[in-house]
Amino acid sequence: MDYGAFITSLLTSFAIFCLLVLVYTVLSRWPMNYNIYYCSRILSGSGPPLLPPRSRFVWNPFAWIKEAFVATDVQLAETAGLDATIYINFFSTALEIFGYSALFCIPVLIPIAVTSHQNERELQINPNNTYEPIDNLAIGNVEPGSSKLWAFLIGVYWVSFVTYYVLVKNYKHMIDLRTSEQAHEKACVQQFSCLVRDIPKPPRGMTRVQQVDTFFKKLHPDSYEKCMVVTNHKKLSEMWSKLESAKKSLVHVESQFDLSKSPTFPEGNRPTHKTGLFGLWGQKVDSIDFYNEQIKELAPQVATEQCRTLEEEQKAAAFVFFNNRRAAAEASQVVHAPYAMQWQVFPAPEPRELVWENLAKPLYERMVRETIIYIVVFFTVVFYMIPIAFISSLTTLNNLVKLVPFIKAIVDYPPLNTVLQAYLPQLALIVFLALLPGLLMLLSRHEGIPSQSLMVRATSGKYFYFVVFNVFIGVTLFGTIFSSLDGFKELLNSRKLSVSNVVTLFGNKLPPNATYFITFVALQFFVGYGLELSRLVPLTIYHLKRKYLCKTEKEVEEAWAPGPLTYETLVPNDMLIVTITLCYSVISPIILIFGLLYFGIGWLVLRNQALKVYVPSFESGGRMWPHIHSRILASLFVAQITMIGYFGIKKFPYTVLVIFLPFITIGFTLICKMNYYPSFQVTSLAIASEVVTQSPSLSAIINAYTPACLQSEADKSEDNDRFEDARSNVSSRTDSGINFSPGGSGQESA
Amino acid sequence: MDYGAFITSLLTSFAIFCLLVLVYTVLSRWPMNYNIYYCSRILSGSGPPLLPPRSRFVWNPFAWIKEAFVATDVQLAETAGLDATIYINFFSTALEIFGYSALFCIPVLIPIAVTSHQNERELQINPNNTYEPIDNLAIGNVEPGSSKLWAFLIGVYWVSFVTYYVLVKNYKHMIDLRTSEQAHEKACVQQFSCLVRDIPKPPRGMTRVQQVDTFFKKLHPDSYEKCMVVTNHKKLSEMWSKLESAKKSLVHVESQFDLSKSPTFPEGNRPTHKTGLFGLWGQKVDSIDFYNEQIKELAPQVATEQCRTLEEEQKAAAFVFFNNRRAAAEASQVVHAPYAMQWQVFPAPEPRELVWENLAKPLYERMVRETIIYIVVFFTVVFYMIPIAFISSLTTLNNLVKLVPFIKAIVDYPPLNTVLQAYLPQLALIVFLALLPGLLMLLSRHEGIPSQSLMVRATSGKYFYFVVFNVFIGVTLFGTIFSSLDGFKELLNSRKLSVSNVVTLFGNKLPPNATYFITFVALQFFVGYGLELSRLVPLTIYHLKRKYLCKTEKEVEEAWAPGPLTYETLVPNDMLIVTITLCYSVISPIILIFGLLYFGIGWLVLRNQALKVYVPSFESGGRMWPHIHSRILASLFVAQITMIGYFGIKKFPYTVLVIFLPFITIGFTLICKMNYYPSFQVTSLAIASEVVTQSPSLSAIINAYTPACLQSEADKSEDNDRFEDARSNVSSRTDSGINFSPGGSGQESA
Repeated sequence: MDYGAFITSLLTSFAIFCLLVLVYTVLSRWPMNYNIYYCSRILSGSGPPLLPPRSRFVWNPFAWIKEAFVATDVQLAETAGLDATIYINFFSTALEIFGYSALFCIPVLIPIAVTSHQNERELQINPNNTYEPIDNLAIGNVEPGSSKLWAFLIGVYWVSFVTYYVLVKNYKHMIDLRTSEQAHEKACVQQFSCLVRDIPKPPRGMTRVQQVDTFFKKLHPDSYEKCMVVTNHKKLSEMWSKLESAKKSLVHVESQFDLSKSPTFPEGNRPTHKTGLFGLWGQKVDSIDFYNEQIKELAPQVATEQCRTLEEEQKAAAFVFFNNRRAAAEASQVVHAPYAMQWQVFPAPEPRELVWENLAKPLYERMVRETIIYIVVFFTVVFYMIPIAFISSLTTLNNLVKLVPFIKAIVDYPPLNTVLQAYLPQLALIVFLALLPGLLMLLSRHEGIPSQSLMVRATSGKYFYFVVFNVFIGVTLFGTIFSSLDGFKELLNSRKLSVSNVVTLFGNKLPPNATYFITFVALQFFVGYGLELSRLVPLTIYHLKRKYLCKTEKEVEEAWAPGPLTYETLVPNDMLIVTITLCYSVISPIILIFGLLYFGIGWLVLRNQALKVYVPSFESGGRMWPHIHSRILASLFVAQITMIGYFGIKKFPYTVLVIFLPFITIGFTLICKMNYYPSFQVTSLAIASEVVTQSPSLSAIINAYTPACLQSEADKSEDNDRFEDARSNVSSRTDSGINFSPGGSGQESA
Repeated sequence: MDYGAFITSLLTSFAIFCLLVLVYTVLSRWPMNYNIYYCSRILSGSGPPLLPPRSRFVWNPFAWIKEAFVATDVQLAETAGLDATIYINFFSTALEIFGYSALFCIPVLIPIAVTSHQNERELQINPNNTYEPIDNLAIGNVEPGSSKLWAFLIGVYWVSFVTYYVLVKNYKHMIDLRTSEQAHEKACVQQFSCLVRDIPKPPRGMTRVQQVDTFFKKLHPDSYEKCMVVTNHKKLSEMWSKLESAKKSLVHVESQFDLSKSPTFPEGNRPTHKTGLFGLWGQKVDSIDFYNEQIKELAPQVATEQCRTLEEEQKAAAFVFFNNRRAAAEASQVVHAPYAMQWQVFPAPEPRELVWENLAKPLYERMVRETIIYIVVFFTVVFYMIPIAFISSLTTLNNLVKLVPFIKAIVDYPPLNTVLQAYLPQLALIVFLALLPGLLMLLSRHEGIPSQSLMVRATSGKYFYFVVFNVFIGVTLFGTIFSSLDGFKELLNSRKLSVSNVVTLFGNKLPPNATYFITFVALQFFVGYGLELSRLVPLTIYHLKRKYLCKTEKEVEEAWAPGPLTYETLVPNDMLIVTITLCYSVISPIILIFGLLYFGIGWLVLRNQALKVYVPSFESGGRMWPHIHSRILASLFVAQITMIGYFGIKKFPYTVLVIFLPFITIGFTLICKMNYYPSFQVTSLAIASEVVTQSPSLSAIINAYTPACLQSEADKSEDNDRFEDARSNVSSRTDSGINFSPGGSGQESA
């Protein structure tokens, strides 16, 4: 990529960003768009900002920035949940890492690079070795074996230790955030519950419920309350969804009917539809009658199926409930049975995020599934490399012209040429990547993971592998080979395609690749965050839907429902930027500025969105943090390995000093895992023992863990005897004198 | 080694074994030797077998075999402890693995090898390729690429799956053994205790004891009883040992004085000694007066130091005691603090096996020490290879003659030549290996390990690495190179010392090496177990000591005290035999017979010794088993990798089918670790919740965990107020109404 294209790319990205921010500031002030720009506020009841009359004139386009800036972590956690807070704290972590790194790398390393002359010298030796002015800011311009490389070696140490320091500081902060949530005097339902999996076959003449009850009553005589065996309610769930959808359709057609009535036409049009595919074929029926009929038919079927499910579909997993959160925290950490793979007890996930069909999957099945899926993921990661490399080589303008000569006339128009040259390779890449998360999410679901948050993390992990291997390594290596087709052909012809030759090629092309990645990062943050902030796509969809489809209030609400932040794609993409920036932070320190911009703008935009837009559909208690933490360290590890290789190529005799760094990183990772990770995996006893003043009632806890399709109308109001089949009897415990009231759990009042 | 030497070696080994067994049967019947051959029985009070008068004539030399054979695991566990029982069960595990393996390998693979002609053919091509008749029984005689190799491939699968099956079966058996001990209705002191390490600095104005007390009272309000802070009593311990040794010397000289009195010389000789080095120099003093003086001087000093230690030397570790074993088991598995590296709670080791100086070492120090020691061990393992290879090449007779020509005259005498040729290389090796365990034990102690049993396992692990790398790989590879100096020189001269050439050399020499290892195994079991059974060395030392040194009853007792089994050297040596046998089980199946003999004779001899001789100095609850289990799997893994390499060398096109096996082994290892290992690491709640009918009193538990030098005379009889400094106050708990009596713990009686 030449220098002009690089600058054009940056400038157009910036222009698009400014435009989108402007669009946002204008659109977000129109009340008809409030549902899109302030959805979280509307849902929580605090509503959009009420503008005082005079402010209509004194229009401050940066009000949202100020608002996003001043919000504290506590406010964020209250409004957007702990998961979002921790995700946004990841941005400040990255900012700190890059900020402190820049303190050394930019004022020290760039002047050293600029005052060197390697690029010039190589041009004199071989006129093919062209370079751009920006390449002079990188390590590539330093003479091999020169003692100037000491500064870069110190740079690697600086970046590494800055990263360790910032990570420790932030891990502690994250633990504080999580602790204040977990030790809150208002306890939540999952703190009293554990998930038991891999229950062995019940002994003859004993039901599952009796088996679980007997086992836990013996092992936790003072604290165990009740259990609820997990059922396979797939069939019931389908019937129930059908019923619910019929109910919804009925409301829709009734409201349609009401709307068709007007003073001039008071009897209205009774809506009709065809029963065939998509309502396009088949018999024409009166919709209101049809849905009424359907509901009348389905309701008793659902009730029968509910009974059958509770009786016959009990599986080898259960939720057990305790009378205080200390006991539940303790139980979830203890080996219960002599063969530890039986009766495995886990902290219960939040009820909303349960993946019911996976809860009762046997351990061996889970292991086989995991293995198969990891093999599939491995092949996906490895073999996507080939098409990505192919596409990113095709979509450089020069190659396109070579392949499709007749477009030459169009692209020769200079401004168009520059823009295309800047964006083509990146656009292909971004489109390509957008296809993957769905597939990976599906794969993760089939691993047998019990909770959605874990599924999100599993997907994010797989996507991260993919992104690092394919985008980072793939683009660097294959982009290099394809861009210098001569070199590639030469290697092939002279049969010199050995490891060391590829390494040398790779090393020589690393600094020029920095330019490519800077454009990539800039495109990501300027265009990506512009789109994110302006929400043009959801806005358009919402207005279209409201105009043509929505008939009821509920349907309008669904049309603007913001949904949660999609961490499974956000995190790996952010991590890719972290990886790229860390890897190039010493090779081409100018990238740090773009890394800072990415995370700075991201921090601001996402705080705004978290405060005003997105509504989490479940809370995992910030368990994304250890995932992010270990991946930052993995990126650092890759960066250190890259630097070892690069110093080797630069024939620097003290390269050996860098070899300690990967080991330090491994040691640091292990210590963090030992010291901090357990707090995210389980609840420590010190935190679980904090005083509780407000705890949910047992029936509230049980209701929360009863799947919607098993909840009868009666059940929603109070305990119901019908469910005793799959739940243990509570009366035996209420006699025991243990106080289980909302005013305080038994343990604390004793 | 030629065939004659091999047979001679076997025969002489067998002759020595028979002789030693004969010596044992004779000597063990002499009452003066009972202290050596029946020590464990004498100590436990059951005494040596009382021989009925007539049996003096009907002398049955195989009585001990019958006795060893019929003892059950329960009897063994009662007499020799769980650790010894599990160690002996390791022998039956190995016997089962080799027995089932032999069922296929010997009747199928040996005939296939014998009917092939590769060795003959190679001899025709190159007369230098000599071979021995025994080599015809091995895979080396099968033609490369032949379809006969299918049988050997099936053999590898057979051996692998037999190993998996036997390991699962025996792991379950070991868990049953351990469970019956842990769930015993008679509870022992360590079941009520936990070891807490890495306690953070106490807050200002709080003592350690108060800090630990406050923390645990809050987190375990119903079950926590008392704590005892670990002190640094190194100085006290030295003074106390001096005092104890003075007391012992006083008894010795007094008894010496009494013995010197005789009817003819009633006043006796008052013993005297010199105060200088070894009693050889310095002032001559009256011994009785001297030691009396010394005791009078030291006793008050020790008392003062006791007080000072308890007050000032409290460290960041403590023992905490609970009122029921369920609570202690639970506490030892739970994360207590938000930063999990603080307040780490472990199951308490048995009091006798505590390594006091390591208990309070901070975690970071332990990690640094571990790292350093692993680096040291790594270099030991790698660089011992060179001297071992050197020595084993020197000590072949031919090389010796080359180096020291003048011994040629001696060794040319044929019988001597044969014997020397058979034993020389192995003897050097065995002597070499005997030097190492001490060093490794010292290294392990400096890792900061809290209990002796763990130290034994750490040493055994290091020794196993050493033995596998150096003896197994070292002898095979370097022995090959040195034995064919021509081949070695050729490789060096032609600069062909590449990996693939070494692999080919290695592969070609593998089957002939089997002969070497068979001799090695035979020497180990015939001579080793013969010496073990006859106990000639301890017998000689005992009789010499009794005659010349011992003056008091106690000193005589110390002279024959048998000590425990030294697992740190026994286990790795047995594991080496397992590794060798597994690796050669398909290459040269005849080795299975020798493996069976080693573990068969070992099983018998060690059962005899465990029942009659050794007295364990502590019990770890059989925690050696997971260590052995994972190393058997590591051996299997090495064997599978060896076979992949060997099939590759044999140009067998279906080698790819063996590649699955190492992965299956890894998977199997992980499953065993998940399913069975936790039961050995902690006590599962199901077991800890079993009914206890007899439990030690709190003061008995505390006394057991008080180091000997801190126990005052008064303390031994009842609780003492002087120790309140380092122990929490018990009275606050006795008011709480929780019953803590020997008749049953509070939990069970509630």
